[in-house]
Amino acid sequence: MTRELVILAYSGGLDTSCILKWLIQKNYDVVCYMADIGQDEDFEKAKQKARSIGAKDVIVEDLREEFIKNYMLPGVQMGLVYESRYYLGTSLARPCISVGIVKAAKKLKAKYISHGATGKGNDQVRFELSVYSLWPEGKVIAPWRLPEFFERFQGRSDLIEYAKKENIPVSATPKEPWSTDENIMHISYESGVLEDPAAIPPAKIYKMTRDLQQTEDYPCVIDINFEKGLPVSVQIPSNQEKALVITNVVAMVETLNKLGGQHGVGRIDIVENRFLGLKSRGLYETPAGTILHVAHLDLEAYALDREVQRIKKYLQDKMADFVYNGFWFSPEANYTRKCLEQSQDIVNGTVTVQIFKGNVTILARKSSKSLYNQELVSMDVSGGFSPEDSTGFININALRLKEYARFLKQSELNK
Amino acid sequence: MTRELVILAYSGGLDTSCILKWLIQKNYDVVCYMADIGQDEDFEKAKQKARSIGAKDVIVEDLREEFIKNYMLPGVQMGLVYESRYYLGTSLARPCISVGIVKAAKKLKAKYISHGATGKGNDQVRFELSVYSLWPEGKVIAPWRLPEFFERFQGRSDLIEYAKKENIPVSATPKEPWSTDENIMHISYESGVLEDPAAIPPAKIYKMTRDLQQTEDYPCVIDINFEKGLPVSVQIPSNQEKALVITNVVAMVETLNKLGGQHGVGRIDIVENRFLGLKSRGLYETPAGTILHVAHLDLEAYALDREVQRIKKYLQDKMADFVYNGFWFSPEANYTRKCLEQSQDIVNGTVTVQIFKGNVTILARKSSKSLYNQELVSMDVSGGFSPEDSTGFININALRLKEYARFLKQSELNK
Amino acid sequence: MTRELVILAYSGGLDTSCILKWLIQKNYDVVCYMADIGQDEDFEKAKQKARSIGAKDVIVEDLREEFIKNYMLPGVQMGLVYESRYYLGTSLARPCISVGIVKAAKKLKAKYISHGATGKGNDQVRFELSVYSLWPEGKVIAPWRLPEFFERFQGRSDLIEYAKKENIPVSATPKEPWSTDENIMHISYESGVLEDPAAIPPAKIYKMTRDLQQTEDYPCVIDINFEKGLPVSVQIPSNQEKALVITNVVAMVETLNKLGGQHGVGRIDIVENRFLGLKSRGLYETPAGTILHVAHLDLEAYALDREVQRIKKYLQDKMADFVYNGFWFSPEANYTRKCLEQSQDIVNGTVTVQIFKGNVTILARKSSKSLYNQELVSMDVSGGFSPEDSTGFININALRLKEYARFLKQSELNK
Amino acid sequence: MTRELVILAYSGGLDTSCILKWLIQKNYDVVCYMADIGQDEDFEKAKQKARSIGAKDVIVEDLREEFIKNYMLPGVQMGLVYESRYYLGTSLARPCISVGIVKAAKKLKAKYISHGATGKGNDQVRFELSVYSLWPEGKVIAPWRLPEFFERFQGRSDLIEYAKKENIPVSATPKEPWSTDENIMHISYESGVLEDPAAIPPAKIYKMTRDLQQTEDYPCVIDINFEKGLPVSVQIPSNQEKALVITNVVAMVETLNKLGGQHGVGRIDIVENRFLGLKSRGLYETPAGTILHVAHLDLEAYALDREVQRIKKYLQDKMADFVYNGFWFSPEANYTRKCLEQSQDIVNGTVTVQIFKGNVTILARKSSKSLYNQELVSMDVSGGFSPEDSTGFININALRLKEYARFLKQSELNK
Repeated sequence: MTRELVILAYSGGLDTSCILKWLIQKNYDVVCYMADIGQDEDFEKAKQKARSIGAKDVIVEDLREEFIKNYMLPGVQMGLVYESRYYLGTSLARPCISVGIVKAAKKLKAKYISHGATGKGNDQVRFELSVYSLWPEGKVIAPWRLPEFFERFQGRSDLIEYAKKENIPVSATPKEPWSTDENIMHISYESGVLEDPAAIPPAKIYKMTRDLQQTEDYPCVIDINFEKGLPVSVQIPSNQEKALVITNVVAMVETLNKLGGQHGVGRIDIVENRFLGLKSRGLYETPAGTILHVAHLDLEAYALDREVQRIKKYLQDKMADFVYNGFWFSPEANYTRKCLEQSQDIVNGTVTVQIFKGNVTILARKSSKSLYNQELVSMDVSGGFSPEDSTGFININALRLKEYARFLKQSELNK
Repeated sequence: MTRELVILAYSGGLDTSCILKWLIQKNYDVVCYMADIGQDEDFEKAKQKARSIGAKDVIVEDLREEFIKNYMLPGVQMGLVYESRYYLGTSLARPCISVGIVKAAKKLKAKYISHGATGKGNDQVRFELSVYSLWPEGKVIAPWRLPEFFERFQGRSDLIEYAKKENIPVSATPKEPWSTDENIMHISYESGVLEDPAAIPPAKIYKMTRDLQQTEDYPCVIDINFEKGLPVSVQIPSNQEKALVITNVVAMVETLNKLGGQHGVGRIDIVENRFLGLKSRGLYETPAGTILHVAHLDLEAYALDREVQRIKKYLQDKMADFVYNGFWFSPEANYTRKCLEQSQDIVNGTVTVQIFKGNVTILARKSSKSLYNQELVSMDVSGGFSPEDSTGFININALRLKEYARFLKQSELNK
Repeated sequence: MTRELVILAYSGGLDTSCILKWLIQKNYDVVCYMADIGQDEDFEKAKQKARSIGAKDVIVEDLREEFIKNYMLPGVQMGLVYESRYYLGTSLARPCISVGIVKAAKKLKAKYISHGATGKGNDQVRFELSVYSLWPEGKVIAPWRLPEFFERFQGRSDLIEYAKKENIPVSATPKEPWSTDENIMHISYESGVLEDPAAIPPAKIYKMTRDLQQTEDYPCVIDINFEKGLPVSVQIPSNQEKALVITNVVAMVETLNKLGGQHGVGRIDIVENRFLGLKSRGLYETPAGTILHVAHLDLEAYALDREVQRIKKYLQDKMADFVYNGFWFSPEANYTRKCLEQSQDIVNGTVTVQIFKGNVTILARKSSKSLYNQELVSMDVSGGFSPEDSTGFININALRLKEYARFLKQSELNK
Repeated sequence: MTRELVILAYSGGLDTSCILKWLIQKNYDVVCYMADIGQDEDFEKAKQKARSIGAKDVIVEDLREEFIKNYMLPGVQMGLVYESRYYLGTSLARPCISVGIVKAAKKLKAKYISHGATGKGNDQVRFELSVYSLWPEGKVIAPWRLPEFFERFQGRSDLIEYAKKENIPVSATPKEPWSTDENIMHISYESGVLEDPAAIPPAKIYKMTRDLQQTEDYPCVIDINFEKGLPVSVQIPSNQEKALVITNVVAMVETLNKLGGQHGVGRIDIVENRFLGLKSRGLYETPAGTILHVAHLDLEAYALDREVQRIKKYLQDKMADFVYNGFWFSPEANYTRKCLEQSQDIVNGTVTVQIFKGNVTILARKSSKSLYNQELVSMDVSGGFSPEDSTGFININALRLKEYARFLKQSELNK
């Protein structure tokens, strides 16, 4: 009898290593899939580990550029912010990885995809909704939701014991009392000691950004250039003839991460609402993402018509929810994304930002053409404006208010 | 013949001083009205100036507590942010002042209210819509929109010349090349050299907050307490037995302004959309307001149900537009405000924030009761959660996505 | 060993009769619960049937007034219409019944509630979300989702066979080739031959309303009176001294059902989106509900300020989704409902409607006080309106459009 | 001295005839512009009248196809309904006429456009905002807003007197005590005796549609075909081999108008909110438009994904306001229209409707491909659906509700 093939989203950590072994013991052939989306990982070592456990093969795919081009930067362009604060670093990575693993599954004619995401989290949803969208006939094995698995492995110690018994190498360094998710856009921290929303997080938790006390003493002023709402290049420092100009998007994000990190930019500590209905507390650091979002928001306000901006804002809030909840490949996200992109045709120009002491400060913005009309707004010249018109404008707007006052008075009298 | 009475919103500056004189020359009796909403002003001197010009009387009213209690803090509670960035410091002050001046007008049986707001700006609208709401039979004289006035006084030099001729005292210090609006919540800077959105603002423009280079070297960690979404007290420093606890709202705002100022908190430089349809560039500094808004946003995310939060967010974006555009006393603002307040019944608790180097960093939040359930979200205990349920949840959510995939395939085939 | 108690939502039909027997055979004590919400049902006969099958007890509760007062009429007041067409007759009944059955379960100290709703439908969701909201510690047995049950009973014939074997009386009349849900507000028809959205429904399917060919030959004109957006009385015919005035809400709905039925009012045939993500086709007839909704919409447009109306509309669309999806007792529905009710304080007055040939035609509306100002709107008198103001209003509104034209031209030139 | 050229939107009626004369007397050259958008008008006679009064030239342009193709049918496609009831027949015509008159003005190098719209109405706004968008440097003369004009002509009798004096022919038939606006899409009735919202409109007011008592005795069943949400053809009667198939859009609309008229379809009597802030009462009859809108709504619900439908609904409500208020050529309408059109790519298929006794009843709908999945929704076959999944779906959705119940209980205890 031939064994059925499972592609396992493998991280090299304890959980997915135990799942790998467990799947093999359940009589599956397992190919491990690792996406390099910029996390700090020794892929060679992880590869060897997977093979030593019994993986039939290990695929490592560099998706960094793909992730930046098709997920992170469109996220900036669309202005995606979940619940007013979170830039969706993890949520954006999930569909990107799903594309990679589904391609592998289809190519290898696998029947299953498996992952180590837990049953209370968002990532299982994002991962599986993406997989089912791209591969409707595919099947997912989620061990952490199978009683057979989760009743056997009730805590980390059960996994360690199993690992030891099955000769799975276990890291000597004790695990940090929280969990992280890392990619080139951000690192998230949650669970463990962070589960108490009233507990101040331990010092030294962050890895991409320095504490404010350790940041550089001199500000860095740069120019960020946008075309159709997408960041296309960065000039460091701003407005200098011999400045460094970075146009490769991977290099751009890496450089902004480094700069943002040196200046302590992009940390948040929030309570958020998971798609399953739980509230959870998370810490995020998103240096480059924060710089790009702040700059984009400024240029957009400069470029877009007021009423278009209102509609775009509505759509962007919707889209942030779609993405957070795992619906990147849904009809609604496809549609909303097209609408949002359409709004960005005229978001072109340059924003000058100062990065300093955790702050991303807008200093100036410009564009070769724009709805901004300096003459018209000027207090010193009329720019074709007739002040008398404002009187009519105000009086007509007051009509409805006076009617309301009349009505309130009438209501008072009739009481 | 009796002269008709005008109440003039008087600032003590060149514009309203000239308007005062001009109104008198137009045969009106003029009573000047000055609201103290926390701006840096020598009211005694302004009073004398007005009298010397010919004002029949000068009323100075301290509206600071009124402004904080009924406008600024409800603004925090409602989460009012215009175009994602501006906390509406000026917009909130206008209806407050209007209440004061209308009361005076009614008491003195005046027929007119006059003001020095210009024809391109928002303040004329906010001011007049408020006045007409509160006093529908009242009339407004807006000289800057009367051809007779604005054709005569085409620039600042015309005003200065008129002032000299009419013995109106003119400040010896040259005017700054921008205009400001100031109250206990914020200072705004616009016009003049700031009209070019690509021009980096001059150094030393800000008055309430220090430049980041000049800020304190040690962070300040404080607790902010909320009841029904309203900030009710501040404890400095956080979590200390003998900490200072401030419950008077004026003192609270003043203290947070001082703290925020020392740490360089609350500056923004934005392009915004005026109600008249112009885009303008403005700088704002809002130290206490920023601290309170950041803390409130955090507590709200912790306290509110996810779906209530979504609806509240929609309403709050609407309300911010109403307030910016001058519709504080409109039926829609009355209604929306009631709805927003209703959402805040359960926003109670304490937020611990660190104020440092321009940053307001959330460290922790707590509440005696909350929708946050640490056990339920825990990765270590089940908290009554059945992981198998997530499978069904995901599969049902995937139904629609699989149908969409089927449809796309079918569409492809039918091409 | 004591047997655990189940409260079964019992309809008297084949499905729940078999479930009753099946539960007893699974060693449960079963009390049947029947809510009278106006469906055409012989409760005495159903009672006897349940007892004969082995029910420990049968509770029949008259919830008609409760349903009308607390669900149907608030649905009119809130303007609840799902996907622009469906007045939510079934969706509104589910939470009402859930309150009744949960009360019974708590009183009898039952451990379980059971129902005969199927796995693809909305009603299982509405029913269980309501039950869990009201009784979080309660448990639900949904046989149609238990493999043990649904694999055994794969079609109607399996149920009939089981019924015969277990001496459960089976109706002699063959079942109609569709399923219905009935209450005092509406009857729905779906499934079976209706599943093909391209199939014209069979003649004579509707029960509450006559076909247009059979309707009365003379129109009926009535007055409907509203207080705070709630229908409080009906006068038949309109504007007659000795007209019949009905103030009892049950009588009011029954009368309007009869009238609407005679005139063929309130049928729709739609494809709708179920909460689970399926599209389904349904037919509904809602005579009284349609008349009341049409009248309410008219009065509301007359009474509410334009901008309040916009916000109310947004909230009402949200609320319709909440109710359809089963979230009547959710925090978001609680909140939204309060907001919607608040908007209705000024929706008072009388609407005159003509009911004829399937049409509900508005003829007139009036109110003792209103924002409608006949003088102001009159083409014959000025009513205090200054036409010159419109010029300023238009010119200022044109500002943004002219800027856009300028921008487009500039963009064209720069190409 | 050369006289400046005005293009006058001329109707042939008393108002614009007097305006024509008045403009000439004010020393303008006047060219009259008449758009044929399907109104019942003797253009030849109007032409002669204008010339006899002194018009330099009279342009009559047939815009019926233009109006149907680029305004009316896109209105159906976008689902534009103002305040839930009004299909915007007048609002859609205004931008269409504006394009025509602006083209004429540019071609003839006119400096001004003039019209007879009054100062309280919507049409002045729609007309002028369209003109300024298309011709920003153009100027508008609106006599009814010029004191010189409206103070002289205070009522209809002043106009008649002036007409007599100036030899302007005045119609012998007395004017109806209301005003109408007519085009191929609809006729509106307002003002005069209709200004009292409590007055039942006089009999025989409607012109396009028969009273229900006079309608045909047999229903008409037809098929309407849509491509990308646009009605492209009509088949009469439905589903017959030798049926009439109409694909020319003008013929299609005319036929549906006739059919709808015979069956009394498409009348409404509403109170609406004008852009200026007034409430007004209007009657509309829109036979073809109503049939097309009802059919489109049905097909759209069948074709669109649920969540796309929600977003489209939001955008369509916004767009209806933009169009009603006169912003057809605004940036927001341009943008929203593109988004709305994008949603319609998959709205293809046929709707079978019965037209009878004022009702447009949906009987069936079909499409060569669709998100509707008859197998999946079937109660008789599983269609790949696993009922157990619904349990997980419900339980996870209940999580948040149970937390809310826990919270309410906790709040109760803490009281």
